[in-house]
Amino acid sequence: MLLGHIVDVLGGSLEGGARDTAIARIAPLEVAGPGDLSFLSNPRYQQQLAASRAACVIVAPALREAALARGACIVADNPYVYFARATQLWRQRNAPARPAGVHPSAVVDPTAQVHPTATIGPLCVVERGARVGADTVLKSRVTVGEDCHIGARCIVHSGVVIGADGFGFAPENGQWVKIEQLGAVRIGDDVEIGANTCIDRGALQDTVIEDGVKLDNLIQVGHNVRIGKHAAMAGCVGIAGSATIGAHCTVGGGAIVLGHLELADNVHISAATVVTRSLTQPGQYTGMFPIDDNARWEKNAATLKQLHSLRERIKALEQALKAA
Amino acid sequence: MLLGHIVDVLGGSLEGGARDTAIARIAPLEVAGPGDLSFLSNPRYQQQLAASRAACVIVAPALREAALARGACIVADNPYVYFARATQLWRQRNAPARPAGVHPSAVVDPTAQVHPTATIGPLCVVERGARVGADTVLKSRVTVGEDCHIGARCIVHSGVVIGADGFGFAPENGQWVKIEQLGAVRIGDDVEIGANTCIDRGALQDTVIEDGVKLDNLIQVGHNVRIGKHAAMAGCVGIAGSATIGAHCTVGGGAIVLGHLELADNVHISAATVVTRSLTQPGQYTGMFPIDDNARWEKNAATLKQLHSLRERIKALEQALKAA
Amino acid sequence: MLLGHIVDVLGGSLEGGARDTAIARIAPLEVAGPGDLSFLSNPRYQQQLAASRAACVIVAPALREAALARGACIVADNPYVYFARATQLWRQRNAPARPAGVHPSAVVDPTAQVHPTATIGPLCVVERGARVGADTVLKSRVTVGEDCHIGARCIVHSGVVIGADGFGFAPENGQWVKIEQLGAVRIGDDVEIGANTCIDRGALQDTVIEDGVKLDNLIQVGHNVRIGKHAAMAGCVGIAGSATIGAHCTVGGGAIVLGHLELADNVHISAATVVTRSLTQPGQYTGMFPIDDNARWEKNAATLKQLHSLRERIKALEQALKAA
Repeated sequence: MLLGHIVDVLGGSLEGGARDTAIARIAPLEVAGPGDLSFLSNPRYQQQLAASRAACVIVAPALREAALARGACIVADNPYVYFARATQLWRQRNAPARPAGVHPSAVVDPTAQVHPTATIGPLCVVERGARVGADTVLKSRVTVGEDCHIGARCIVHSGVVIGADGFGFAPENGQWVKIEQLGAVRIGDDVEIGANTCIDRGALQDTVIEDGVKLDNLIQVGHNVRIGKHAAMAGCVGIAGSATIGAHCTVGGGAIVLGHLELADNVHISAATVVTRSLTQPGQYTGMFPIDDNARWEKNAATLKQLHSLRERIKALEQALKAA
Repeated sequence: MLLGHIVDVLGGSLEGGARDTAIARIAPLEVAGPGDLSFLSNPRYQQQLAASRAACVIVAPALREAALARGACIVADNPYVYFARATQLWRQRNAPARPAGVHPSAVVDPTAQVHPTATIGPLCVVERGARVGADTVLKSRVTVGEDCHIGARCIVHSGVVIGADGFGFAPENGQWVKIEQLGAVRIGDDVEIGANTCIDRGALQDTVIEDGVKLDNLIQVGHNVRIGKHAAMAGCVGIAGSATIGAHCTVGGGAIVLGHLELADNVHISAATVVTRSLTQPGQYTGMFPIDDNARWEKNAATLKQLHSLRERIKALEQALKAA
Repeated sequence: MLLGHIVDVLGGSLEGGARDTAIARIAPLEVAGPGDLSFLSNPRYQQQLAASRAACVIVAPALREAALARGACIVADNPYVYFARATQLWRQRNAPARPAGVHPSAVVDPTAQVHPTATIGPLCVVERGARVGADTVLKSRVTVGEDCHIGARCIVHSGVVIGADGFGFAPENGQWVKIEQLGAVRIGDDVEIGANTCIDRGALQDTVIEDGVKLDNLIQVGHNVRIGKHAAMAGCVGIAGSATIGAHCTVGGGAIVLGHLELADNVHISAATVVTRSLTQPGQYTGMFPIDDNARWEKNAATLKQLHSLRERIKALEQALKAA
């Protein structure tokens, strides 16, 4: 691909380089060779810029001079977004698009509605009454349960299960009586769902994933959950039943949100944090035991079990000192 | 469905309403409309009762008066269990039962024994010597490994893997020598297993899941584990090898039980808790760093690494004060 | 199998017993019966040795006398490795090998290269340009994505997804722009991957799993990760994008390694620990809130949120005492 073609399609201004320079691939600054396009999105890595052997580097206007001192650059307002769009260009060019349609090995119920531009990959299962929207791709081995709906332009990776029964049981005499899960799952447009992630159907109403949500791999979304627009969650997250996650929230890897809680819009949960109460204010929230070498951890963890009594001892000391 | 039919099948007494009232669906109190059946299982939500537009509400005897002040009600000793049974009635009425038998896309070894009333869904794999009991349903894309047995009336959701090799290796000269896993998995009756959950085969003996156990999605059950009757575990739980979980235990989402431990009957583990020792007494156990806003967490987490030395300083203060 | 045959194949010296003793199975010391072979790898369990009814026990040279006092034994330098090899012998003898080749229900792209000695199990998907090496086994329902390579003698358990897109998005105006994942996954020789584990393809370069790595079930390996030779990870681990794990590292169940970190060779992470910084020194590292009964945990957790101010109070006490 020629540099000239890239700026013709994606915009930005090519400086210090020729439009007919051929680009073989996109590569990180530190490994890019003379046939590669690279990018600098974080000014902290500016030192890598000077040393890079890339044919051309995408930079922000503020770094134009530094970049030109090295060689060719594309100046763009948001280099990281520009880089993202460049990867899309690459993919279109180099990977033949999957043909739309239903792979012959998939099992699609005759009552399911699959848009003619959707792609149902090998060994998928689409059950009775399910719907798959325009340009949506189910990669391979995806299950879409009864009456579950997926919007347009979604990407659903391999092994995903949409619409398994939510986990609902009523205790009776030491046993569990199943609560049949009568709701379904409704997924908006432009949603991406990572490999082996599970989204359970609602108990009485639907579990809802709004437009633009991005879920990584091996995430558990319980029944009746609602995830707001453009929220994003990293791998191994668990969202318990009936939780409501606001728009634009982010949840770090391995975090757990307990059931029936509400997270306001723009709440950001750090990795491995357990959300045990509703969070009504935007912001970053964390709860995680800091890592340490094992011997020090053992000492501190043992003391932690006496923390409440240590506080009492501090109080007693304060009173004794006051009295003295 | 008519209210009269519901009480004829499920019991309870219909009061303040007509037997021929038609019910369109079951719905939570706050969203139920004039064609809906609802329920009040937790007296804390009594305020929602008065405001509900439901055609009929299932209530406990103690709330009979309050419910009648509003309109029709079904009085039942355990409204939550009654509600559960109502969902089952709904499902039977509205969802055509899956036909028993093996879906043509499933791969079932000729030596496997599948009960004629069992349902093997699309794209399942049932390996050599496996057994699937009466009325058990494997939804879709379930693997049942060699010689693994599943009892009667079980529900196994999509993507479940029963009988993958347990994780066993002997270290030798910096490499790992595989310990072949010669046991299998034995699952009792009335067990439900959530989507993409994994239950490994035992190393020498069998991994055992007893009757009535309920497992949510994305749970890992290691080799040689035994889970006692009617235990229940929420999503993303990990049970390491050779752990024994007592009957009627519950394990919250994301909790981890380390290997070779024993949990007595009726032990309840909170979400995201790590069980690092055997628990011989029934009760609720917790270990989880409390969530906080990120700035406060950072301060407290930094101090936590000095906790042991803080204790020493308190001791020193106490001695100094005593000496003074 | 006869004891004589076992030592002929695996070495070690048979003492106090007859070569023609028939062995029915391998069993743990405490359950082994008179037809069973057992082993004692941990001297702590020496008491179980005397009580065992096993036909023969594998022991280290130091325990030869104690073992002979009970009956037949096989003396081997490393009884645990000997036991591992014995399980392999058992498996070869008792389980007919899966035939090499591609199961007719698998979907293998014509451009994929599958070694003739490899086994592609039922309902697997091997995409365009993928490669599967000699003697490697994909159990069932495994996906190997485009251009991903798996070496020789690997075992990939059911439900594994290799080569789903890494989780990469650039934020723009409150929405997410997809970064196409242009790299692939390269897996070395003698790697074992547990059920439903996911290994994402790299963004620009490849995600790399080196020789001899052992991954348990339900593990998430993000894009661009590199896992060094003979590392081992227990179930439910999450390795975020661009992390580098050294050779011979071990990671306990449910642990999380954050993105872009480096773990030196021989770093050992305890279960449920969150790695938030690079670890340049070998050793054991831990960070996990100690479990307690719920009431005590609540008290200590509440105090933990005041820990920083408790430290200030200790400081103030120290100064007051000094001044006094």
